[in-house]
Amino acid sequence: MPTEIERKFLVVGDSWRRGATGTLFRQGYLCTDPERTVRVRLAVERGTMTIKGKTEGISRAEFEYPIPAAEAAEMLERLCLRPLIEKMRYRVEHAGTVWEIDEFFGDNEGLILAEVELQSPGAQFELPPWAGREVSDDPRYYNASLVRFPFSKWPKTAG
Amino acid sequence: MPTEIERKFLVVGDSWRRGATGTLFRQGYLCTDPERTVRVRLAVERGTMTIKGKTEGISRAEFEYPIPAAEAAEMLERLCLRPLIEKMRYRVEHAGTVWEIDEFFGDNEGLILAEVELQSPGAQFELPPWAGREVSDDPRYYNASLVRFPFSKWPKTAG
Repeated sequence: MPTEIERKFLVVGDSWRRGATGTLFRQGYLCTDPERTVRVRLAVERGTMTIKGKTEGISRAEFEYPIPAAEAAEMLERLCLRPLIEKMRYRVEHAGTVWEIDEFFGDNEGLILAEVELQSPGAQFELPPWAGREVSDDPRYYNASLVRFPFSKWPKTAG
Repeated sequence: MPTEIERKFLVVGDSWRRGATGTLFRQGYLCTDPERTVRVRLAVERGTMTIKGKTEGISRAEFEYPIPAAEAAEMLERLCLRPLIEKMRYRVEHAGTVWEIDEFFGDNEGLILAEVELQSPGAQFELPPWAGREVSDDPRYYNASLVRFPFSKWPKTAG
């Protein structure tokens, strides 16, 4: 089974921006049930549909399929739950490991998350200076959760 | 936009079975929300994922993608809502029109539905002798509804 193993951190400061170039991601959910999320994504004229199972620790089943960009756009427009997730994704290398940094807009403006994908749950990696508090285990930071309860609506003490 | 236009009827008697050969369909839903259903289907070693929008009259948006059979089987086993839908699908021609007849098993045993797909909402077709009451407008007969409220649990007077 395809499985995704990720660790996720809040981002501190702007030092990660040096030399980083980003890609605009628009994505929406047909289902945000934690046991079976269904995501439609449009990025650089590439459409994808992704199905993820329940998170177990930092792993979860993941199935991903390319779909025509025009159909992804139409599902985002007509079928997906509101709000859509809009973010810039940056790929930043640190100590030989590639991190993905997501800077959110719209209803999730102000949130910046860094993720690293691991080959095994115990894999070692060096923490970059801009990596703040780890939020791998906090379901509020799942993108599907950010549809149900966007960052802009969180109490000021949260985060 | 791809759109599906269908009319659906209950099936009366067994005359339709003459010469009909069927195919076993196993399907499950990741989402049964009427505004956006997500279906995983496995039939004759072919996997498909189908997204349907809200029904408007007898039309609804439909997006369908082939997926690997092994991944369809795994999503059915691990991710899809219970119960799964199991049915034999027969293709039966009547007066130049091909009908699909679904004979349900498992939690929907006893239910047999016939569907005809039309090119336009007002398209003419001849009603076969085995076609009973029309149920196109009855959401209980949607396959996604048969997950939430299977036929075997309907009150005896219903149908």
